[in-house]
Amino acid sequence: MLEVIPLGGLGEIGKNCTIVRVGRDCLVIDAGLMFPDEADLGIDFVIPDYRALEQAGTVHGVVLTHGHEDHVGSLPYLLRAAPVPVYGLPLTLGLARRRVEETPDTPAMQSVACETRRPFRVGPFDVELVHVNHSIPQACAVTVRTAAGTLVATADFKFDQTPIGEPPTDFSRLAEIGEDGVRLLLMDSTNVERPGYAPSERVVGAALDEIVSRAPGRVLLTTFASNVHRLRQAFDTAARHGRKVAVVGRSMVDTVKIASGLGVIRPPRGTMVSLEDLKSLRDSHVMLLTTGSQGEPMSALSRMAVGQHRAVSVKAGDTVILAATPIPGNEGTVARTIDQLYRQGAEVVHGGPVHASGHACQEELKLMLTLVRPRCFLPVHGEYRHLVLNRRLAASVGIPEERSLVAENGQVVAATGDRLTRAGAIDAGSVLVDGLGGVGPVVLRDRRQLAKDGVLIALVAIERQTGELLSPPDIVSRGFVYMRESGELIEASKKQIVEAVARCRARGITEWSAIRSAIREAVGRYLFEKTHRQPMILPMVVEV
Amino acid sequence: MLEVIPLGGLGEIGKNCTIVRVGRDCLVIDAGLMFPDEADLGIDFVIPDYRALEQAGTVHGVVLTHGHEDHVGSLPYLLRAAPVPVYGLPLTLGLARRRVEETPDTPAMQSVACETRRPFRVGPFDVELVHVNHSIPQACAVTVRTAAGTLVATADFKFDQTPIGEPPTDFSRLAEIGEDGVRLLLMDSTNVERPGYAPSERVVGAALDEIVSRAPGRVLLTTFASNVHRLRQAFDTAARHGRKVAVVGRSMVDTVKIASGLGVIRPPRGTMVSLEDLKSLRDSHVMLLTTGSQGEPMSALSRMAVGQHRAVSVKAGDTVILAATPIPGNEGTVARTIDQLYRQGAEVVHGGPVHASGHACQEELKLMLTLVRPRCFLPVHGEYRHLVLNRRLAASVGIPEERSLVAENGQVVAATGDRLTRAGAIDAGSVLVDGLGGVGPVVLRDRRQLAKDGVLIALVAIERQTGELLSPPDIVSRGFVYMRESGELIEASKKQIVEAVARCRARGITEWSAIRSAIREAVGRYLFEKTHRQPMILPMVVEV
Repeated sequence: MLEVIPLGGLGEIGKNCTIVRVGRDCLVIDAGLMFPDEADLGIDFVIPDYRALEQAGTVHGVVLTHGHEDHVGSLPYLLRAAPVPVYGLPLTLGLARRRVEETPDTPAMQSVACETRRPFRVGPFDVELVHVNHSIPQACAVTVRTAAGTLVATADFKFDQTPIGEPPTDFSRLAEIGEDGVRLLLMDSTNVERPGYAPSERVVGAALDEIVSRAPGRVLLTTFASNVHRLRQAFDTAARHGRKVAVVGRSMVDTVKIASGLGVIRPPRGTMVSLEDLKSLRDSHVMLLTTGSQGEPMSALSRMAVGQHRAVSVKAGDTVILAATPIPGNEGTVARTIDQLYRQGAEVVHGGPVHASGHACQEELKLMLTLVRPRCFLPVHGEYRHLVLNRRLAASVGIPEERSLVAENGQVVAATGDRLTRAGAIDAGSVLVDGLGGVGPVVLRDRRQLAKDGVLIALVAIERQTGELLSPPDIVSRGFVYMRESGELIEASKKQIVEAVARCRARGITEWSAIRSAIREAVGRYLFEKTHRQPMILPMVVEV
Repeated sequence: MLEVIPLGGLGEIGKNCTIVRVGRDCLVIDAGLMFPDEADLGIDFVIPDYRALEQAGTVHGVVLTHGHEDHVGSLPYLLRAAPVPVYGLPLTLGLARRRVEETPDTPAMQSVACETRRPFRVGPFDVELVHVNHSIPQACAVTVRTAAGTLVATADFKFDQTPIGEPPTDFSRLAEIGEDGVRLLLMDSTNVERPGYAPSERVVGAALDEIVSRAPGRVLLTTFASNVHRLRQAFDTAARHGRKVAVVGRSMVDTVKIASGLGVIRPPRGTMVSLEDLKSLRDSHVMLLTTGSQGEPMSALSRMAVGQHRAVSVKAGDTVILAATPIPGNEGTVARTIDQLYRQGAEVVHGGPVHASGHACQEELKLMLTLVRPRCFLPVHGEYRHLVLNRRLAASVGIPEERSLVAENGQVVAATGDRLTRAGAIDAGSVLVDGLGGVGPVVLRDRRQLAKDGVLIALVAIERQTGELLSPPDIVSRGFVYMRESGELIEASKKQIVEAVARCRARGITEWSAIRSAIREAVGRYLFEKTHRQPMILPMVVEV
């Protein structure tokens, strides 16, 4: 029986990872991470809990569809749980390898470079990669032929009839595979709310050309570092207008290096220069490619915008192109960056004409369904509403209701004969990564409380024999009120503590935990009444 | 000389407040609040620092343009600083009064109910309110005639040719005022990036009608509680389709009460029922008006969506209409609410057809400029980029550059003869309100650190004479690591403390502050190395 178990990517955009299973044999497609809503709570990123792999069965390998973080970013953690071979196209493997090498305590990555249209064997599975267009080169769909039927996972894709530096999505191979019979299709749901087609990447090049042609001074361009197609267009535009290009920001420098090494981009000879070289050039001969398209406060562009970059400051006459749209949740930081650029006197162009989504819109999704003609359909890669709407879209082109469903991460979905059904579930939690380790719900809840109202520590020294206070209590608070301006409140809180301890003594209460509770309650009530805040109160009792 | 001093609303959307000044005489227009980016840090809202009023001069009164929080929400704090008379139209005063009455320690509000087209005197100023359309009834522009010329402040407006329950913006009065000569126009910049015209509120009614007509079960509708026009249309739609309406959520109930009391809405007889009454009705005869259009976690709709509302749970067959778009920053919570509604099996309609912005788009902004024909122009009410673009738009209809500028909060802007110039500045900071008081930068910085990595308290009892440790150190941490699973790390940290104290003793260091620093440094360095986290470390030293 052909089963899939999504470990991520359902009800969320990110940490894509899907197990394909027949019997106990498993193949994993993608190993992504997700950037958290809880960034302010110190969470760096969120990954699938890979302990699920052991529950699922025997993993024979992992196939990566493209090099974006939400598809390869948690590979190091997957390899820790299951050190299996990694399959993919060369650029994807190069970007994934960087991730693995910079993560401590990760086993070496055993990789197998693949080609599209060249099937390969992973355990009992016959796997084939099919070229698709997306906002990074070498993106592919995955076909898995099994004893229980064929599965196609589109991964992230669009149909671009005029792509940059690569052919259009491999229509004819998809059609052939469809013709041979596909039992189950897994398809991207990101843009299912958008009618029509996603614009071609080529329209971005035309827009860049037009903007650069009338830019009076320097041009600063930012986009997702991994959007190699767009970097390529930026290099070409610069060359056409007699501008030299310097690349700034770690991830942008890394991508250009990896992509150049693989021959995926070839900047026109003499175009690329160092930041140092720029100093001798006139402003109208300069283009900078920089990180910071999401307004990340520590990115090169953000620092340039506030005059805190070591080499470059944004100034009047500059034209700044943000060739990206904000990822949901980043709208605020992007808006603040744009404002800061305007404050410096720069001209700013953002979104719309200088960005094209890499995800299929409604007509493209229908086209994929029509090409592949699957028996069953599982929408993936989207928030819950996207999955619901993608399922409806599939119904509109003839996939009956009983052959599709909306699943949640961890559910086992079985394609049996003419039905798609839920067949149990495994534990598919998330791990919130902070620094070198994970963070659980207790720690997170405490961080939330600390963030809202701070902490107040009440230090009490008690005479062991009598239960009497040895000295006046001491109070330290952080993030609650400014202690230097709150002398009265702090003194009154100390009085509350003294009284609470006295009450305990009068009642013969001697256990520390009870005394601590009494202090916590008395001080907490008093402070809430006076300030309407609820700091975390930590009584520390020393017995002497 | 005619001067304006914006205290808020420039470079931000919210806390609108502008001082109009001639000599030392001041009139304040609006007293708004802003919802913070720092909501997770316990900040309830942000208001202007009204200590600025005293610097500005003698305040004779405050005129309120409409009842939205970003225009009236900080009135209680303004009145604490300057207990002056409050002028406005009746609904606006009603909503402002509610704010004042629920804020402790606020002087009684002395209000003067005004009418449009009826000038009144405030100190040396001749003030007139001019009716405009906006997403709340009784919105108005303000004309201030002074010895130094006439000022017009549009406040929030749009030109709606087919408004609901009120006439269109008073074109002809604006034209007359323009004809008489206007020295300075202050105009809303919110929608300056949008071409064309904002859609009429009436199109929302048509969309609601269509949706309700085909809803098989209950209809739950949410919008901004203050959008009385839209509530009115909801009542009318319900009546037309034989549905009874119950109102849920405190701010929605309050608005309906205030607006009904003033006759601004008149639900068709028998339409309004209690939540209790709904139980006896068939689902297809029910409409609920509820708070929660921004996905606020504690709102009625959010609680209904997760089955935590005392009276109503969302279920399959319900149609939920979110007749609003997310305020920037709320995209995430709104998306999560929509997902949760879909999970419950509800049909969800949101944004687009069921919302119309209350702010003028480009063609309307140009029309306002053409009607008022001011000598000078100051864009207000927008992030910095909106102000820049609004100034450009004014240039496109003939306001020369030297007669407009982009200001920042606190700058004194003077309209002298044929120029608009900067004439100094006053201190115009913000106050972050948390509970009953303000929060300063030190507290906020501490909250940020606590949020990211938590706190670790190291308790040390030291023998006064010898500087020796009396007992092993004690450690409590919250929001850093889960203590029950981190025994080794905690024990090793204690060892760091013991060694740090011993080092101090060996060097004859006895001051508490130096011992505390040594502990903080030793433990901090150790923990960062082991975890890559930087909790706030608070050493507490008891001398016995």
